[in-house]
Amino acid sequence: MRMYDIIDKKKKGDALSDEEIEFFVKGFTSGDIPDYQASALMMAICLKGMNEAETTKLTMAMMESGDVMDLSSIEGLKLDKHSTGGIGDKTTLVIEPIMAALGGKVAKMSGRGLGATGGTIDKLDSIPGFSSELSEERFIEQVKEIGMVDAAQTKNLVPADKKLYQLRDVTATVDNISLIASSIMSKKLASGADVILLDVKCGSGAFMQDYESAVKLAETMIKIGNNCGRRTAALITDMDQPLGHAVGNSLEVLEAVEVLKGHGEERLTEICKELSAYLYVMSDLSDEKDESKRWEEAYRVIDEVISSGKALLKFREFVKAQGGDDSFVDDPTVLKQALYKKDIISDRDGYLSYCDATKVGLVSCMLGAGRVTKEDSIDSSAGIIINKKLGDHVESGEILATLYTDKQDVLEKAEEDFLSAYRISDNKVEKRPVIIKRI
Amino acid sequence: MRMYDIIDKKKKGDALSDEEIEFFVKGFTSGDIPDYQASALMMAICLKGMNEAETTKLTMAMMESGDVMDLSSIEGLKLDKHSTGGIGDKTTLVIEPIMAALGGKVAKMSGRGLGATGGTIDKLDSIPGFSSELSEERFIEQVKEIGMVDAAQTKNLVPADKKLYQLRDVTATVDNISLIASSIMSKKLASGADVILLDVKCGSGAFMQDYESAVKLAETMIKIGNNCGRRTAALITDMDQPLGHAVGNSLEVLEAVEVLKGHGEERLTEICKELSAYLYVMSDLSDEKDESKRWEEAYRVIDEVISSGKALLKFREFVKAQGGDDSFVDDPTVLKQALYKKDIISDRDGYLSYCDATKVGLVSCMLGAGRVTKEDSIDSSAGIIINKKLGDHVESGEILATLYTDKQDVLEKAEEDFLSAYRISDNKVEKRPVIIKRI
Repeated sequence: MRMYDIIDKKKKGDALSDEEIEFFVKGFTSGDIPDYQASALMMAICLKGMNEAETTKLTMAMMESGDVMDLSSIEGLKLDKHSTGGIGDKTTLVIEPIMAALGGKVAKMSGRGLGATGGTIDKLDSIPGFSSELSEERFIEQVKEIGMVDAAQTKNLVPADKKLYQLRDVTATVDNISLIASSIMSKKLASGADVILLDVKCGSGAFMQDYESAVKLAETMIKIGNNCGRRTAALITDMDQPLGHAVGNSLEVLEAVEVLKGHGEERLTEICKELSAYLYVMSDLSDEKDESKRWEEAYRVIDEVISSGKALLKFREFVKAQGGDDSFVDDPTVLKQALYKKDIISDRDGYLSYCDATKVGLVSCMLGAGRVTKEDSIDSSAGIIINKKLGDHVESGEILATLYTDKQDVLEKAEEDFLSAYRISDNKVEKRPVIIKRI
Repeated sequence: MRMYDIIDKKKKGDALSDEEIEFFVKGFTSGDIPDYQASALMMAICLKGMNEAETTKLTMAMMESGDVMDLSSIEGLKLDKHSTGGIGDKTTLVIEPIMAALGGKVAKMSGRGLGATGGTIDKLDSIPGFSSELSEERFIEQVKEIGMVDAAQTKNLVPADKKLYQLRDVTATVDNISLIASSIMSKKLASGADVILLDVKCGSGAFMQDYESAVKLAETMIKIGNNCGRRTAALITDMDQPLGHAVGNSLEVLEAVEVLKGHGEERLTEICKELSAYLYVMSDLSDEKDESKRWEEAYRVIDEVISSGKALLKFREFVKAQGGDDSFVDDPTVLKQALYKKDIISDRDGYLSYCDATKVGLVSCMLGAGRVTKEDSIDSSAGIIINKKLGDHVESGEILATLYTDKQDVLEKAEEDFLSAYRISDNKVEKRPVIIKRI
């Protein structure tokens, strides 16, 4: 088999065989197939597409390129939830303790952020003492002990994807549904969970800016998951504005705690409960056979573990289990505080009618909350607290948001960019629901 | 400017600007742009195409990537003729001395063969003592002295093309008209000729197997040439079977000499005269203003320099000027002789109805006449003498061809492959004209 023929076949629009896909993934991972052949194939795939069988095979071959977690020693179905990434998306921090408090087994590996989008591991790392680097043994042990874990992906988890993504990232070959789906799902599959819930973000702050692409990605990932014997579902959720009030690492952790305390921002709370309900219904936690009753039960028990404080307790347990100091739950000032803060004031009356959420994410980066390159370090306290949501009325002189940073010199530009990310219009605009579609 | 954006733009099917094309060619040649980005762009170009302006700009940028010959010190229009490559194509060796004998200035750089297709330089190198490596000064000097030169491309002639072609060759991105045209034309432009005649081969032994592609390639190259101020024309000629009788290096040189002596194979002679006539009409050699008279004159003077022996004399002069021993013109046995020869006998009666000319080329390679990889060395005496042309009647027991080689062990396989390259049918078939279209 020759890589040349595989490239040529895809260029002509033909479907690759299982053997060809395996040959490529193995050869590319080992370094036998050079980058320049891989990038030519990636471009051909971007322009000619892959069918469902090819996409599934690519995902499986990538999964098999490195370590595959064996979670079989943990009793019950193992749950995982994945977001395709957005601005201010801290749902994982809320959903995991809810599910664990309900008796679920949440075994999740998360990523770090890059560019406008934050990563769960960066958020967790803002907790003093918290360790996101766990051995496989410790990872499994912790799920058995407290029902949940969230750790950085191990080095050898899907090395094919790491290598391939780096290449796609610099060759303009990221935006293909099959490639995106296989990249995400190969990691989900390798992480070993039985139940995979996908939160596909859609809007100005998401990778999938339009609804059709988001649905297509969700459907593709569900097919891969099901083809590989995992219970898989997806929600399309709104990312036309940051989720909740907070953008930035420790700010988002604190906001997650607010949701767990039962007084989180409305849309954020709604999405956290909905995702939790999905996981509950898909899992083995309920004996209820009737599906509509199962959903009713899900919403009820989720409300219960929040109002009873059990979910918050589980969160504290989780933080401590990974070496973190949980005292910030009672006293946020325990966390590192930003040196500078600046309120952003509206200079006009009207309704918030549009938000370029990616731009807001980049402002947060600029303040120190994110990485522009992989080598950048992160300021855990940097970020933005946004007071207004799309559709809200604002008055001239009102505080739209507050910026937090250690870098005084970026404040002016950050304010300017933040303001330009929003549009205020005279007419009232419809609020878009946070849950766009259940798939 | 970022290479990423250039790739992305082409992926979306947009036309690249002059600046973007220049940025790419410069950066790729210098090594600043890595292979994996270049191959992604090549694939996007293969699948999305380039318009005439882009193709012309790419050609010019490539031309400018290295040395550009300055032939202005040679009086008159400098002539060049290029074949897109075929099996048994030795027309250059005939046309050059004809044109020089007519007073033309033929300044040509040629290539070596790779794969099924032979290269003029390999053919010339089969002449004892002949040197194809000339300095730029000597190159120009020789044109001034005897009106013709044929040398290997200098190392720094269009380095961008050398590098890019190597990459395209292993990434299945060769077969795009714009890329093929710019690769050929950048070298023609850099070689400095004023008049460029393109012999675009079409058929089973050519890169362009179908007529439409051949016409498109010819038209694209003519546009580039004209856009760059060169007198450019093209002929589409038949490559559905080897040209002439001989395939192989010294065998082809000897056949070229036969044409110059006035008793060459019919189709080969026709194409040589036609290409020469084109060059004559396009050049400044005639004072005749009326075009149809100019063509009549062309055919007449070409016949004259052959029948008078002037063209053959010019050929001998050329061989000697580049250090070669011209005694083989009188006595072919001066050349290295193959150790083994084997006649291929027809086992049936019928008409030759089809030839896979590429396969014949590969048989010649197998015998030692060509390179499979760049590192292979060439046996100058290896090759095939083919007695029959498509449409010819053959009888059982008749010699179809004779194989020449130093490698006894390949003869059996070579015979088998040669026979499988031809089809003999009961019905008489039309002979395809050697000149398919004049563009």
